[in-house]
Amino acid sequence: MSGLDIDCALVADILTGFVRDEITKVGFERGVIGMSGGIDSTVSAFITARALGHDSVLGLIMPYKTSSPQSAEHALLAAGQLGIETRVIQIAPQIDAYFELFPDAHRLRRANKMARERMTILYDHSLSENALVIGTSNKTEALLGYTTLWGDMASAVNPIGDLYKTQLRQLARYLEVPEVIIDKAPSADLWVGQTDEEELGFTYVEVDRLLYRLVDLRWRDYELAEAGFSWELINRVRGMIRNSQYKRRLPLIAKVSQRSVDRDFRYARDWGR
Amino acid sequence: MSGLDIDCALVADILTGFVRDEITKVGFERGVIGMSGGIDSTVSAFITARALGHDSVLGLIMPYKTSSPQSAEHALLAAGQLGIETRVIQIAPQIDAYFELFPDAHRLRRANKMARERMTILYDHSLSENALVIGTSNKTEALLGYTTLWGDMASAVNPIGDLYKTQLRQLARYLEVPEVIIDKAPSADLWVGQTDEEELGFTYVEVDRLLYRLVDLRWRDYELAEAGFSWELINRVRGMIRNSQYKRRLPLIAKVSQRSVDRDFRYARDWGR
Repeated sequence: MSGLDIDCALVADILTGFVRDEITKVGFERGVIGMSGGIDSTVSAFITARALGHDSVLGLIMPYKTSSPQSAEHALLAAGQLGIETRVIQIAPQIDAYFELFPDAHRLRRANKMARERMTILYDHSLSENALVIGTSNKTEALLGYTTLWGDMASAVNPIGDLYKTQLRQLARYLEVPEVIIDKAPSADLWVGQTDEEELGFTYVEVDRLLYRLVDLRWRDYELAEAGFSWELINRVRGMIRNSQYKRRLPLIAKVSQRSVDRDFRYARDWGR
Repeated sequence: MSGLDIDCALVADILTGFVRDEITKVGFERGVIGMSGGIDSTVSAFITARALGHDSVLGLIMPYKTSSPQSAEHALLAAGQLGIETRVIQIAPQIDAYFELFPDAHRLRRANKMARERMTILYDHSLSENALVIGTSNKTEALLGYTTLWGDMASAVNPIGDLYKTQLRQLARYLEVPEVIIDKAPSADLWVGQTDEEELGFTYVEVDRLLYRLVDLRWRDYELAEAGFSWELINRVRGMIRNSQYKRRLPLIAKVSQRSVDRDFRYARDWGR
């Protein structure tokens, strides 16, 4: 027992109810979701289709020219299984137009610009399709800061943001997500050959076991070390969480009044409805 | 006395210290700011230059082809007075590349896409210039939701987010912002001839008086009505605040664990430093 095992039937029902409630109570009926062909956005799409019905979900597939063709194929495979509508929108024209000004820009700059361009396209469709943007980022990447601020982290409603990557794998099997999507190496597909685990330097299985104990169970470092985690990994992961805290919070506003946004003026998102 | 009068010398010092502290304590020395030529971004730039020194601020001017040429002129005028570096980056190539797919898109879609494109460019420069993005949105527009989510609302550190528009005018005079910037009609300049007050249907003087009583002093509706505000305005402004609450909060995550991002796991942005 790793402590990460979830009751998939129960969690799927909670997430489905969450999406349905949060979208309908603010007067919407539809969702729009960026589908990368990876496990996170696929699970999110499966939950959303369960919640709203397959004809109320629009999947956007937004490849760059270096994106693996497999990514779009997998997204279409998942969408086909769900019976949801998809639209393919290339982001290369916008991205390349910008980087003409900065031809030497390194790949992290390009990767961030792409993640944010996809956000802007999702939100444009939110307006034109009268649909809320469904989030696709998981708890592992949110805690590690392995995300783009105001990019893949941005959404209206995120069903999977409190689930670790390894928990999403369990849920994906339960939901009968195509095996090929569950089994492939996780990748943000932001440059050719990228895999998350190679870039991070540890596996999701390893880091999720650590994160769960560190964050959810609030274990101390010596307890983690006694349980067999290396000091190097403990320190590295603690550092990543600490240094990415700004990505999990709103902009910092200088307080000069009695009631400030996100400080004393901080109600639920649907406050007053 | 409207209650909105501020002690400009004191507020300017607080904001200056805030920007200096928040940027340096996370290991940065520089700021990057989008300069529209309007009063908000100009005051923000003046404060930032006071805080970091004029050679540590980069102003980005990001016109679209329908932007008033006056906007860029005013931004350059302010930057010249401060002695800060500026860079002009056209956003038309990226915006037009996208809307080729949607030639009939209405102007609100275009306006939002532009605001978000500017955000992505500011954050690209944050990475390439090792500078934090300085916010330029004020309390009036944040409360009314007269903003683009993940667009002009997004920043690292916002010195002016707790000041109403009319308070920014006072501060601008104190900081000796060029008169022409203070005196012109506020406009997001997102389409030709746009002015905020015409679009909103009320003046900033009027709505700030109302917002201050409603939000900061927590007056009840009958007290506002007794003070002379029309029921129509009271109801309209309350509705705008309520319906835009989602723009002042992070994405909503389905809670299924003991500690969830932005719920139980919610520390200061610089937690642990």
